[in-house]
Amino acid sequence: MKTEEVTPIKIKKADSSKIEKVDFDHLTFGSVFTDHMFVCDYVNGSWGTPEIIPYQPLVLDPSARVFHYAQAVFEGMKAYRDDKDGIWLFRPDENFNRINKSSVRMAMPEFPEDYFFEGLKTLLKLDEKWIRKGEGNSLYIRPFVIATEPSVMASPSGQYKFVIICSPAQSYYGGEVRVKIADHYSRSASGGIGAAKAAANYGAQFYPTNLANKEGYQQVIWTDSNTHEYLEEAGTMNVFFRIGDKLLTAPTSDRILDGVTRKSVIAVAEANGITVEVRPVKVEEIVAAAKSGTLKEIFGSGTAAVINPVAGFGYKEDKFELPKSSDSYASMIKKAIIDIQYNRAEDPFGWRYEVR
Amino acid sequence: MKTEEVTPIKIKKADSSKIEKVDFDHLTFGSVFTDHMFVCDYVNGSWGTPEIIPYQPLVLDPSARVFHYAQAVFEGMKAYRDDKDGIWLFRPDENFNRINKSSVRMAMPEFPEDYFFEGLKTLLKLDEKWIRKGEGNSLYIRPFVIATEPSVMASPSGQYKFVIICSPAQSYYGGEVRVKIADHYSRSASGGIGAAKAAANYGAQFYPTNLANKEGYQQVIWTDSNTHEYLEEAGTMNVFFRIGDKLLTAPTSDRILDGVTRKSVIAVAEANGITVEVRPVKVEEIVAAAKSGTLKEIFGSGTAAVINPVAGFGYKEDKFELPKSSDSYASMIKKAIIDIQYNRAEDPFGWRYEVR
Repeated sequence: MKTEEVTPIKIKKADSSKIEKVDFDHLTFGSVFTDHMFVCDYVNGSWGTPEIIPYQPLVLDPSARVFHYAQAVFEGMKAYRDDKDGIWLFRPDENFNRINKSSVRMAMPEFPEDYFFEGLKTLLKLDEKWIRKGEGNSLYIRPFVIATEPSVMASPSGQYKFVIICSPAQSYYGGEVRVKIADHYSRSASGGIGAAKAAANYGAQFYPTNLANKEGYQQVIWTDSNTHEYLEEAGTMNVFFRIGDKLLTAPTSDRILDGVTRKSVIAVAEANGITVEVRPVKVEEIVAAAKSGTLKEIFGSGTAAVINPVAGFGYKEDKFELPKSSDSYASMIKKAIIDIQYNRAEDPFGWRYEVR
Repeated sequence: MKTEEVTPIKIKKADSSKIEKVDFDHLTFGSVFTDHMFVCDYVNGSWGTPEIIPYQPLVLDPSARVFHYAQAVFEGMKAYRDDKDGIWLFRPDENFNRINKSSVRMAMPEFPEDYFFEGLKTLLKLDEKWIRKGEGNSLYIRPFVIATEPSVMASPSGQYKFVIICSPAQSYYGGEVRVKIADHYSRSASGGIGAAKAAANYGAQFYPTNLANKEGYQQVIWTDSNTHEYLEEAGTMNVFFRIGDKLLTAPTSDRILDGVTRKSVIAVAEANGITVEVRPVKVEEIVAAAKSGTLKEIFGSGTAAVINPVAGFGYKEDKFELPKSSDSYASMIKKAIIDIQYNRAEDPFGWRYEVR
């Protein structure tokens, strides 16, 4: 390994690349990682020298607080290669701002903006071969922060590690998605951490999602924990409902993640003359619309799939199928966003961020 | 290091002990650990050979799911040495049952009972010098389970690690404790994971607790997230209120941890002729009792402090001080429980568990 000093990031390159061993046509989401990772440690009240090092295990004391108290936040982003080998990010400022908001809610220190962007750009340039051309190909980027102080005292850690790892991804298609509307289990509480992209919000959903899987649903749409009358989000996606020609989606709150794709969907829809009502959406309204035939679409929005159309949903004992449509809002909005992401269209919103 | 084979636990002893370097008179809670740890890995649908190894860092892929989705649960227990060098645990069956209940809620595999008890006893015997005689001295035991599969897919991990680490502890006294009654932030939702001893329930409390600290309170008493009208628990303790001669505490629910010390307090109180009302407790009832002078005590119950008396509390703009009493229920019940823990009294409940 040779060591180079690039202010302020210290770079230690991998001896060789693993890329030749990777089958890019058969990738499982989030399980193959690039040759390098970005790391930066927080000790004694400040972030130390950011480093890029060969992808390698983390070595942590068994008492590190992340294991015991889930002081941990993350982000999900993607890098895209256009047809002229330009490399782009999509609204990375949103992810940067959100990881720091999440950190504040979890009593963790904010990360400096220049470390984040310089670290990310340097890492992407170093591992640029992993970002492949072509529809659906991208590099999934996972920044995360974990509490590392070795002590099981139930109080905020004094030490943290900021890490970025990257995983090549293909177009995400998990088959037809049917969702279950939650009527017992909950994702988050008013006054809780639901708006933070905190690790703690995710593991909690696995058990109720397993139960839904057994009933034939792939995901759960969460409702408010007080009454289960209002639709909130799907845990890894925000959710949109099309009734007639209007799109409905729940407002963000301290229970709902302020999704980057969610706000992009709203902007693209409105720019295309679609009325978007951001307001509390009642389960009974959606059930009634499904029964009367005015419910045209349900889709989720998130970084992994951009837009994920929903084929049907279940609520208590009832099951509903959604009509199949060739001119869906979902496909129109998805195409518009993807064309911006891959630099195949104008970017009227200023969302693209050039890496190289 | 020499390796011994003791069925079914594989033991690798530390070359030397760190115990001589430890200042047992000035221990910080949860930051010094004994010479050995217990580990057992879950792969391909089953738990592998349990091992005791020298205390050492965990080496995990940066994509291990515990870092990203907080699939992690734990327990808190203590071992005590009596005056005749007997070593005892307190109701360990409760901790064993609870860690598996917590695991089920977090979509994690249950751990076998014989591995747990044999592992724990073998570990305690090996590190028995770390369990010191004398009032207040104990060995704090932290069993925990973390999701280790290297993949950032948002679904349950296929690999886990069960670990037990141990930390010598002194009598826990954090000075006078004043608590803030939550009127905005929440610990857990109905239908959520509040009843599980999941890592995810803890980090979420740090930020609101920091805010309370700034107002002069050491801890927060959480209220229900729907209305903030009912008192629930204190995050690391269950809470009891004495009005007149009665003790009140909230019933357990899917939002409240079923505390081992909590149920021990109820049993000891009732055996001593004290009426314990386990029912929803309204904030306004406690505030009214504080104003009228019938509120005699508030105390928390938990493994770390057994009983933690509360000197005062705040609710919205009001602050209340509790009377100082020489014949408090808190001190009577604490003594009764500690005498059982240290084998200084009869054990009518059958709570003591002999390690050696």
